[in-house]
Amino acid sequence: MTLKISEKYLGSFISKHEYDYIQPLVSESHRHLTNRTGAGADMLGWKDLPENYDKEEFARILTASEKIRKSCDVFLVLGIGGSYLGARAVIEFIKSPLYNLLPKENTPEIYFSGCNISATNYEELLTLCENKDVCINVISKSGTTTETAVAFRIFREMLVKKYGEEGARERIFVTTDKEKGTLKEFATAKGYETFVVPDDVGGRFSVLTAVGLLPIAVAGIDIGKMMEGAAAARLAYTDEDLMKNDCYKYAAIRNILYRKGRVTEILVGYEPYMAMMNEWWKQLYGESEGKDQKGIFPASVIFSTDLHSLGQYIQDGLRNQFETVISVKDSGSKMPIPYDPANVDGLNFLSGMDLNEVNSTAMKGTLLAHIDGGVPNILIELEDRREYSLGYLIYFFELACAMSGYLLAVNPFDQPGVEAYKKNMFALLGKPGYEEMRGALEARLKE
Amino acid sequence: MTLKISEKYLGSFISKHEYDYIQPLVSESHRHLTNRTGAGADMLGWKDLPENYDKEEFARILTASEKIRKSCDVFLVLGIGGSYLGARAVIEFIKSPLYNLLPKENTPEIYFSGCNISATNYEELLTLCENKDVCINVISKSGTTTETAVAFRIFREMLVKKYGEEGARERIFVTTDKEKGTLKEFATAKGYETFVVPDDVGGRFSVLTAVGLLPIAVAGIDIGKMMEGAAAARLAYTDEDLMKNDCYKYAAIRNILYRKGRVTEILVGYEPYMAMMNEWWKQLYGESEGKDQKGIFPASVIFSTDLHSLGQYIQDGLRNQFETVISVKDSGSKMPIPYDPANVDGLNFLSGMDLNEVNSTAMKGTLLAHIDGGVPNILIELEDRREYSLGYLIYFFELACAMSGYLLAVNPFDQPGVEAYKKNMFALLGKPGYEEMRGALEARLKE
Repeated sequence: MTLKISEKYLGSFISKHEYDYIQPLVSESHRHLTNRTGAGADMLGWKDLPENYDKEEFARILTASEKIRKSCDVFLVLGIGGSYLGARAVIEFIKSPLYNLLPKENTPEIYFSGCNISATNYEELLTLCENKDVCINVISKSGTTTETAVAFRIFREMLVKKYGEEGARERIFVTTDKEKGTLKEFATAKGYETFVVPDDVGGRFSVLTAVGLLPIAVAGIDIGKMMEGAAAARLAYTDEDLMKNDCYKYAAIRNILYRKGRVTEILVGYEPYMAMMNEWWKQLYGESEGKDQKGIFPASVIFSTDLHSLGQYIQDGLRNQFETVISVKDSGSKMPIPYDPANVDGLNFLSGMDLNEVNSTAMKGTLLAHIDGGVPNILIELEDRREYSLGYLIYFFELACAMSGYLLAVNPFDQPGVEAYKKNMFALLGKPGYEEMRGALEARLKE
Repeated sequence: MTLKISEKYLGSFISKHEYDYIQPLVSESHRHLTNRTGAGADMLGWKDLPENYDKEEFARILTASEKIRKSCDVFLVLGIGGSYLGARAVIEFIKSPLYNLLPKENTPEIYFSGCNISATNYEELLTLCENKDVCINVISKSGTTTETAVAFRIFREMLVKKYGEEGARERIFVTTDKEKGTLKEFATAKGYETFVVPDDVGGRFSVLTAVGLLPIAVAGIDIGKMMEGAAAARLAYTDEDLMKNDCYKYAAIRNILYRKGRVTEILVGYEPYMAMMNEWWKQLYGESEGKDQKGIFPASVIFSTDLHSLGQYIQDGLRNQFETVISVKDSGSKMPIPYDPANVDGLNFLSGMDLNEVNSTAMKGTLLAHIDGGVPNILIELEDRREYSLGYLIYFFELACAMSGYLLAVNPFDQPGVEAYKKNMFALLGKPGYEEMRGALEARLKE
């Protein structure tokens, strides 16, 4: 089994009848998801994507990724939020968080930019591009997202200086709306190859579209296998009965715990390569559920590292959180603990043992310790670290998120709150059309 | 002024009289801190450290850092929790989160290990050490911390294979207890140079001891200037009146907000180089205050990046958090926004503007948006990104943490909860002496 949920470490925090009582709500939400009658139903494109994805574009992604691998040392991916988190998370999960430092077989260094407004960061990335061949993938539905647009200005200018307009044309790949928007128009005029951000897939659900797939393929990851894994998950999670559907069960447990005051969820990994998947998950759940003044606050840790940081709090701080632990059964590495004749650390009883076994024991010990400390734990066991399993996990989290949002009674597919800072920023920066707002904001800042 | 707190963005969340009413508690806590009569008073060594630090050892740190820089390409720092977070945070803040990738002037690559039990991570680090000269700094008070001890076994074995016992002796630096413990004994027997983890400074308060200073110095950072900054903060924050003491004011505000249900604090940076300082802060506050079933849960974000991730939640999710924003006035870089004749993104009104100005405007816009969304914001303005300012900020956070813990009525200097997972892990791994516990735990796992 690729993925399995264990309720064993929920201890006595949830009684059997609570599943029974929430089942009708799960069933109703399931009907809305299936019949596309719930809030935000026009954004359900991700749901059948693993089956219905555009095969012609998929083939072009593979061809483009091949071309990119052959023609550059550095590949810059420009995008923010869902336009970078998925790809970065997958690359770090499958390859490594140290991907750019480690020796590579015919794949370029990959940097994610266009996701901040930091001069220091741009300066450094320009340094990293010096004397190297560079390709760019700019990802923006509209082309007007400030962070990404600024990055595209900076790096397109660099490419044109380096290779001329003609040369740059072969090195710029644009993922944007299929027909409208200024970026689409510009790409067509310039002759850049384009890929599509579908209309019915929101940013945080877009990792299995061209948004995520092109950068992932450039890293030499088998995107076909990822889609297969996601397709398998899609078929596995069709039963409305939460006792037969681990995906709905995860959504139900979250909502049961939330309603008894467990308002923070900590996603726990035991491998450094999971850190960016945690970040992807935080956007997926935080942006889908954090609205109408409610929702579970998503946090994350990597253990055992953070057992020496947030561990104390989780063990014995305010009792308003729960943990969801992802355990990857086979990470693909082995590391025996060396024997030390001096036994300085008293750990000779571990000599010869594989580190994976110690890690997995640390997990079990921690699960029990945290239950004893009063923190419910959901355990998600994942088969391995490969493409198929990861595609499966991604779909699991996406569908569970939709179900969970409906159980919370929000629209899991919009993000109205993201506009607030943008409007203020535009007004304060003097964007045409925002003059009146600007005066009011500046007055508040002067108070 | 190096550091300044602004209450402007607290909006109407705190009334003037609330400061008056908490002042007596601040004064009482101040007396306990000053007279060393409060809980955990034997762990107040960090308080006078910027003045009273061991000058002879400080000189040895500088000499050792010079030797290390000259003799290796890769410097491995082995430690967990407070034994790695401070140094890593400072190096990324002052140098860069991309430090290991960027060109360096006579300083080695620096990797932090011994802070996990991940076979994949060790395998990668061994790869990164191939064909390179390596030095090690192992940091552990007792020498028996599992994660760090395992790393020391693995990398010491590598060094001895590479250079022999004699050669390894010149490349191993040990930071441990000044006289007792097996690691100290072993280091003495082997002739390794040793540095001291003071008895009266806990791990999370140890960045300005040899624990943090040696790796920081190896990165080419001026540790003398850091100590000067910390010393200046020590002198600046002596007034018990919170209206005249920004450090106590921060502690007081946190406690006022906590008592009205703001149980999660999100530390906000606007530069990628602040991400690890956020992690350092999370340990400092989470481990100091998260006990006796209470305490503020510490979370963190980097904006504008995470405005497209957790931004929606902060703007409009459950209203139980507040934000503390660190604004660095001068980050030392400039990046003008290029002009685009096509104006694809409609951003030509920004052409020629320095990105720092856009970033700072994004911050102001976000502060106002989040207040309007119902989230109180504390603003901390820091002069620049240099050593002196960072030393100042570190001391500010340490002292504020002690005050805040006393206002919460906990012992801010212990971490009893960290032992729970360790005991379970040892028992399950079959450590001699844990036999009885093992049986009980295994029975629970089989349930």
